[in-house]
Amino acid sequence: MSQSTATFTKSTETIRNGVDTDTMFATLDAIKAQPQIAQFRFRASNRWLGGAHNRSTIKDFYAACGVDTSRSEGFTLDAGEPAILLGTDTGPNPAEYLLHALAACVTTSLVFAAAARGVHLTSVESTLEGDLDVRGAMGLDDNYRNGFEHIRMTVKIAGDAPEEKLRTIVQRGTDRSVVFDSITHGVPITVDVITG
Amino acid sequence: MSQSTATFTKSTETIRNGVDTDTMFATLDAIKAQPQIAQFRFRASNRWLGGAHNRSTIKDFYAACGVDTSRSEGFTLDAGEPAILLGTDTGPNPAEYLLHALAACVTTSLVFAAAARGVHLTSVESTLEGDLDVRGAMGLDDNYRNGFEHIRMTVKIAGDAPEEKLRTIVQRGTDRSVVFDSITHGVPITVDVITG
Repeated sequence: MSQSTATFTKSTETIRNGVDTDTMFATLDAIKAQPQIAQFRFRASNRWLGGAHNRSTIKDFYAACGVDTSRSEGFTLDAGEPAILLGTDTGPNPAEYLLHALAACVTTSLVFAAAARGVHLTSVESTLEGDLDVRGAMGLDDNYRNGFEHIRMTVKIAGDAPEEKLRTIVQRGTDRSVVFDSITHGVPITVDVITG
Repeated sequence: MSQSTATFTKSTETIRNGVDTDTMFATLDAIKAQPQIAQFRFRASNRWLGGAHNRSTIKDFYAACGVDTSRSEGFTLDAGEPAILLGTDTGPNPAEYLLHALAACVTTSLVFAAAARGVHLTSVESTLEGDLDVRGAMGLDDNYRNGFEHIRMTVKIAGDAPEEKLRTIVQRGTDRSVVFDSITHGVPITVDVITG
């Protein structure tokens, strides 16, 4: 019974939006005290499986001055293309994965921001749409870029805060999102090639 | 037997790297003749499931002047965070999904480029690593950006072409990749918020 009571107390006092805010603030304090633990390196390995089908595996990453091997199993992600883009729907296509990465990152960022500010969210939903003229990527017309021209995101949010505060939380979510910043401001990519 | 022979003929003549090159060139001709069919809009919907767990669904998209409903079922993608980032590993994290999107897009682009050039690939593998100092995204130090500082990608490629041609194919894959261009050059994102 005492253990059950302790769990209940912790749930009501420090867990908000499913985020352990005690651990969150302890993490922030640990980074302030030892900034080098803030350096992360995320990783993915990909293998071509034929046609538009390829698969990434994701498991360990570098964090807190060492390799984090806490995941007991890795994740497997299959990519593909729909028929109109010469694939057989072996998975979402890469452009769709990019939209998912963006949605997921903004959602997590704003949920964490709400938890830190004492706001209890009841729902967060988003829809995303990215415009692309494939004449660019297909090499048919250099007047069109190869990537997305524009991405629109609609975030629907509900919780126990006034509208203005909920809007501030979404703003914080986009401002501090790793993927939102990476896509809006760009990231340099270095490519090495090994043949044989 | 005649059907078997026909299949064999098609396999050796027009299918390269699992890509139907007849359909590929027919698609390029169709776009040249009617450029408005090149306008695509990819879509994703995301829902928060608690803490760092959220899920995207991906199915229809806009292409060739209408909504493409050819996928019989949608795709579901779960995102999460590892313990050190306050999650329970309900899926890869958003930053890792971004790396996967990049790997998948470059791979597909270079496989299609090889097919168009008559090069038969035997293997394509890539490893990606993205550097991130989380002091940015955690709001602890504005000297660090919120997104990735740098992404490194190593592509290992083998096929029936000289080394220089294989390198040119990888170059074409990165040059024409939707996600590579989106990440290196950035994409404007518009965010609308609905509260309540």
